[in-house]
Order: sequence, then C-alpha cells, then structure tokens
Amino acid sequence: MTLAEKILAAKAGLPFVEPGQLIDCPVDLALANDITAPIAIKIFREAGIPKVFDRTKIVLVMDHFTPNKDIQSAEQVRFCREFAREQGIIHYYEGGNCGIEHVLLPEEGLVVPGDVVIGADSHTCTYGALGAFATGMGSTDLAAAWITGRTWFRVPETIKFAYKGELRPWVTGKDLILYTIGQIGVDGALYKAMEFTGEVIKRLSMAERFTMSNMAIEAGAKVGLIAPDKKTLSYVRKHSKREPVVFKADRKAKYLEVIEYDCSKIEPQVAFPHLPSNTKPISEVGHIDIDQVVIGSCTNGRIEDLAVAAKIFSGRKVNPNVRAIIIPGSPGVYKEALRKKYIDIFAEAGAIISPPTCGPCLGGHMGILAKGEKAVSTTNRNFLGRMGHPESEVYLASPAVAAASAILGRIASPEELGL
Amino acid sequence: MTLAEKILAAKAGLPFVEPGQLIDCPVDLALANDITAPIAIKIFREAGIPKVFDRTKIVLVMDHFTPNKDIQSAEQVRFCREFAREQGIIHYYEGGNCGIEHVLLPEEGLVVPGDVVIGADSHTCTYGALGAFATGMGSTDLAAAWITGRTWFRVPETIKFAYKGELRPWVTGKDLILYTIGQIGVDGALYKAMEFTGEVIKRLSMAERFTMSNMAIEAGAKVGLIAPDKKTLSYVRKHSKREPVVFKADRKAKYLEVIEYDCSKIEPQVAFPHLPSNTKPISEVGHIDIDQVVIGSCTNGRIEDLAVAAKIFSGRKVNPNVRAIIIPGSPGVYKEALRKKYIDIFAEAGAIISPPTCGPCLGGHMGILAKGEKAVSTTNRNFLGRMGHPESEVYLASPAVAAASAILGRIASPEELGL
Repeated sequence: MTLAEKILAAKAGLPFVEPGQLIDCPVDLALANDITAPIAIKIFREAGIPKVFDRTKIVLVMDHFTPNKDIQSAEQVRFCREFAREQGIIHYYEGGNCGIEHVLLPEEGLVVPGDVVIGADSHTCTYGALGAFATGMGSTDLAAAWITGRTWFRVPETIKFAYKGELRPWVTGKDLILYTIGQIGVDGALYKAMEFTGEVIKRLSMAERFTMSNMAIEAGAKVGLIAPDKKTLSYVRKHSKREPVVFKADRKAKYLEVIEYDCSKIEPQVAFPHLPSNTKPISEVGHIDIDQVVIGSCTNGRIEDLAVAAKIFSGRKVNPNVRAIIIPGSPGVYKEALRKKYIDIFAEAGAIISPPTCGPCLGGHMGILAKGEKAVSTTNRNFLGRMGHPESEVYLASPAVAAASAILGRIASPEELGL
Repeated sequence: MTLAEKILAAKAGLPFVEPGQLIDCPVDLALANDITAPIAIKIFREAGIPKVFDRTKIVLVMDHFTPNKDIQSAEQVRFCREFAREQGIIHYYEGGNCGIEHVLLPEEGLVVPGDVVIGADSHTCTYGALGAFATGMGSTDLAAAWITGRTWFRVPETIKFAYKGELRPWVTGKDLILYTIGQIGVDGALYKAMEFTGEVIKRLSMAERFTMSNMAIEAGAKVGLIAPDKKTLSYVRKHSKREPVVFKADRKAKYLEVIEYDCSKIEPQVAFPHLPSNTKPISEVGHIDIDQVVIGSCTNGRIEDLAVAAKIFSGRKVNPNVRAIIIPGSPGVYKEALRKKYIDIFAEAGAIISPPTCGPCLGGHMGILAKGEKAVSTTNRNFLGRMGHPESEVYLASPAVAAASAILGRIASPEELGL
C-alpha cells in the first residue's frame, strides 16, 4: 500500500484498501473557519442533534477576516463563538490567540502523524507534511462528521514524486511545489494522493514541507503526503503531547505514476497570472514592475519564511512604489519574529507588519489590489481577481523572491541584490 | 485678542480681528485623506485648473482603510496616488510610510506654531496643541484652497478653559477633555475656539495636549488651542526645520466665557454610549463586561499612550473574552514601540498589534463590533454604530483605563490592578 492507503486502512480498521474503494473512517479532527463554520453550524443545528460527537476534536479558527473587517465578518465570528461556548469546544481561536489555521494547528500540537483530519478549508491538506491524511471538504460533510465523528472517502490513487539532486541557491520547497504544479497542471493530480519523496524532501525544513503539502490542492490532489522522519517526530514531540503513529509506503506499493525531478535544474519559480501552474523560472520573468508584496499565509507564514525575508530586508529599504505586507502566521510566529528581531528589520525596511490573518490571500482584506496593480505573493492562488480587482495580477513566489522583489520594485531574484 | 484671533489676524495681514468678522486667509497646509481627497480631486479637476497652488503645501494621507480593506478603498488610494504623481505632491503617504494623519503630520514636522492648517477631516483641530489654527472643513472648500492657496473664516468667539490643581493618579489629558465635553456638551463650544490654559496644561506632555486639542471638535469647536511654551518649541525643533511663530493671548483678550476646573476633583473618565459628552467618573461605571479594547487613533496612538498601556499590560494577560487591538499611530511610533519593547509586552500579553491605521475608530475595518458587543476605546467618538453594528456599544476612555479593562475583561481602573 502507498502512504495514503496505509493511513486510511489503519484508521478504517481494514487490513487492506485499494484505490477506488469507498471506506467509512473515524476522524481525529474536524476543522472549520470563520467563513465555513457558520454554514456547518446551521446544518448541524438543522439536524436537531444536541451535542457534537467530541468537543475536543472540533477546531474553530476565526482567521480569514481577523481583526474583523466589517459587521458581516464580526457577526460570523459571534455566531461561531456562541456555538463554541454552547458546545464547550476547547479549540476555539479568536482574536489574540488566533493564527492562520494551517500554521496554528501543527504549532498547537493538534495534528500528529497517522491522523485523519478533515477541514472545511481547501488547504487542510497542509498537514500531509506530518504524515497525516488531511483534506478539505464542504461544510455539509463537515457538519455530518461533527455529528457522527466519521466520514467517507474514496481511496485515492497515489502519484509518487521523487525529488533528486542538489537544490540551487534560493530554491525552496515553495519553488519545488510551484515547479511540480507547473509540470503537471492544476488538474494534474485530481483526486489523487501526492506522495512527496526523495533526498531533497528529507533535507527540507518542516516549514518547507508544510508549504509543499499545502499546495497539493493546487494540482487538484486530495492530499499531499510526506512520510514522517526524524525531523517530523522532533517537530511533533516539541509541539504535541499526543502519540504519533508513523506509516510508510510499502516497498511494493502500487503507484498510478512515479515522477522524478532533477532539482539541480530547477530555478526559483514564479507563477504568472492567473494560475499556479503558469510557472516560469526566475531567469525568464523579464521586467515586471510591482505595487505590492505579501509575505505570509498558510503557505509561507512560518518563522523560517520570515527568516528568509528578514535576511533579504536587513539593511535595505522597501522600494517606495511597493507596499510590502508581512503577515506572521500565528501569535507564536509573531512572538518568535519579535525575539529574533525580524519585526525590527521589517519595520526599519519600511514594511507593514500585519497581525496574523488570511487577509489579502483570498482578497479578504489587509492589502487588496486596485485595478491594474501587480503583486508578488507567497500565497497559494493567483486566480483572476483573487487579491482584489479583476484587472489586478498576482504572481506567486517564495519568500526569498517576494522579499527581493519588494526591495527592487520589480519581480527579482535575491541574487540581483548580490545575495 | 485671544490666541485664535492673534493667529488669524497675523495670517490674514490684519492688525486686528474680532469674533464674527469674515476674513480671507492664506493656508500653510491643506490636508486630505483617502476618504476625502478623492472628492476634492474631482472638484479640483472640474475647475479646469492644471496645477495646485503649491505642491509642497498639500498633504495626502491614505490612512483610513490601510492596508486596503477592499477593492473600493484600493481604488480610492490609486486615484489619489495618480493625482499626487501628476501634481508632484511631495507629502503623499501610502503603505509603509503611512500613519494616522494627525499623528503623522506633527512628527513629520509639517505643522509649526502660528500655522493656519485646513484639512478635510474633522480632527484636523489636533494641531491646535502646537498653537496652530487648525480646523476641519469639507472637500469642496479644501479643493478651493488647493486652487487659491487661501480660505475664508468667520473669526470664532473664544472660550477659555483654565485647568487648576493637581491631577489624581491615572488622570490624563484624555480624561480632562472627556470631562470638559461632559460638562459643556457636544455643542458646548459650537463654532467657538477653545483655549486650553492653566498650570495643569503646562504640565501635560505634548501627546496629552494633542489628545485634548484633537477632541475639541467633539464639543463642536472650530479649534482647540494651546499657547506654545518650552515643551512645544522643544517638540517642534526636534521634528521640523520650519520656524515657529509663537502667539499668546493678550492679557486683556475678550473671552465669551472663562471656565475653570479644579482638576484634583476629576477622576478617570468614561464616555458611555452614544455621545462623548455622556461621561461618568470611573468610580460610577459599575460592572460592564467588554468584548474588545482599542488603543490607538489620532486621539491616543502616540508613543506616550503606548507607554501607559505597556506599563499596565506588562506581566499580565489580556482577558480571554477580550480582543485587545493596539494600533501605533505612525511608522515612527511603531518603531519606537519596538525599540522600547512595548510591542513585545503587547504580544506576550496576547494583544493584537495592528499596523498604523484609522481602522476601527470609524468602523472602517481592523476590529469591527458585532451585534451586542461592547468596546472600550481610546478613540474620539462613540456614536451609534460608530465601530460596527448599530447595536454595539463604544465606551471612550484613556489608554490607562482601556488597558486595565483589557486585562480585567470589564471597564476598570488601573487601580484595580494594584497600580
């Protein structure tokens, strides 16, 4: 069995599963946010069930429009808060303890290897980096799981990706996943499990692994898995008291396809408007002036991401034509960025430091683009109008490329700064 | 002549002015923001004049919805940016160099004693603390001044306020102005000049003086003036290269009224919904649970305000039922708060640190209230629905009371924390 099959079989209590099989499975965590939870709550209430299946296994994170951008978003949060109080839900995050859900949950130790996690948010697949089968679904399916504690899956086929070779300077997990999506397309792994393997993955930080798993959905995948290793277990032991259950793919696992990349040939990548698959190597980008840079999100809002940006911002100034918005992904990341003086560096450079929020990634608030404006963003989607006006443009890149672009006022590699 | 009369007479080139007289007067600075500038720009363009009277005397501050909360606000900013570029306006603030206009302008040294400043923003009266005749007006009058460099005034009657005695612990400029408005009402100084005098005013920091002048408009006043003294001149020399022109009221100046307050009897004040004049001393507030605290704005977003808040937050935690939003008033305040470790204290306490913005003060964004929610805020207005839902409530107070309330989860004095 592949890694995805191993986790699902174990969780469903079956000796063996195969692609296409429909299984019924308990869930370890059922997540929703300020956009999707209100819908799930309404459905839950319509069902007339008084209590959720397990108040410790539901997570509500009010992250998308925080600090509340308008009355509607404030009302959504109030509705969720009242539900959380009524149900005694302990993992309720709002205001000062709130971070971007997919940055926050691993930090809070709520997900460990071997878990099955569902979330009414497409980037729930982030936790695949921990070796957890984690996937997004609609609020209706989520509400059903809040009642039963279970959900159903069609066991996905798995595509194995093997990353070989040495990474070039400034090439990160973000570049690998952008490159991969560029190669296979936004439907290249539709309802498949992506299994990220190879020596390069082993060398990536946990932050970079989260970035890769996070964007599995941008290739249409159900899940983006990385087998737990020492790094994973060290991370999990630091953050969680729960016991990890480590699975690995069998040697003779059947993959739909095995795709190998020679990473020594991969440059920093930029995904042009309006698809994450519309990638170009940085050397082929040309001269593109920009108005805004966003560094943050569930894709690249971790301390390692801010460290890269701080290295590039240090002693430099943001280009006067650029609004550089830095968004630490959680209160924990924010505090660590303070301790490590990254916030000082960003402020001295003339950047704007936002509290943790999904904000501009989804065109929610905290940096929306006007007509004709261009942004380099470390987020995960550059769909038409994603960050504002339908005639604005979003270019996806790593924190390194985003930071260099903020300094130079055009899409640029850190190498152009002599770094 | 009173202080207001002295400044206006000098600026209009007249030996003498008296209340009721209509005068024509050059302006030293004509300010607008992201809400009011677009209207002024349209009117300016309709007039068919190619250039503004003096591109160095127009200030545009994109502060109300920054970081851009939505497409509409982003479009407003783009419109202003294009105008600023076209006209060569040098004092254009957007993004990383942007702060709240009335915190920013004195810091940037753009206002000095003796100036006449008009702004399409009601709290332009803030600069009265520098001994400048500064007042808000509509975008149409502002556009006319952009063309002619002049405006007209009806010389206002002056009410003199004399603050005597010793301040009690935790009583600040904010409490004095709230108390004053509570005494005279929101129309108590309608189209009058308020002249703040007395030994207590002399002892106030510049930050507290700005707070008092800022809220003169909440009593209906045209301007809230404080005669420049050593403190003023020291502040101005630190921030500006321009030469101050210091005026003082004549000993025999004719006042409409002279009102004297014994400050030793004034407690910290709280303005209850829904008027700034609806004040109570803190001892008469009773038990009022709160959902949000906002510390910031053109009224109380200066480093001295954050210092008070930091002292109270230090080593304590924000109440879990409260969202505490701290908004440094400018990039300068933000950086100083970093240097002084206030930001660290706020983050450790569990507060949310916003980039500089007017944000929630006007119900713009960055912390909007849901139905039934209550906030303690250091801002200047608590009108019905001002910070969000029409059924939410805003209680105005000083940074000290706001910070203590954030910790205790209800409206409270710092003395309740043993401070």
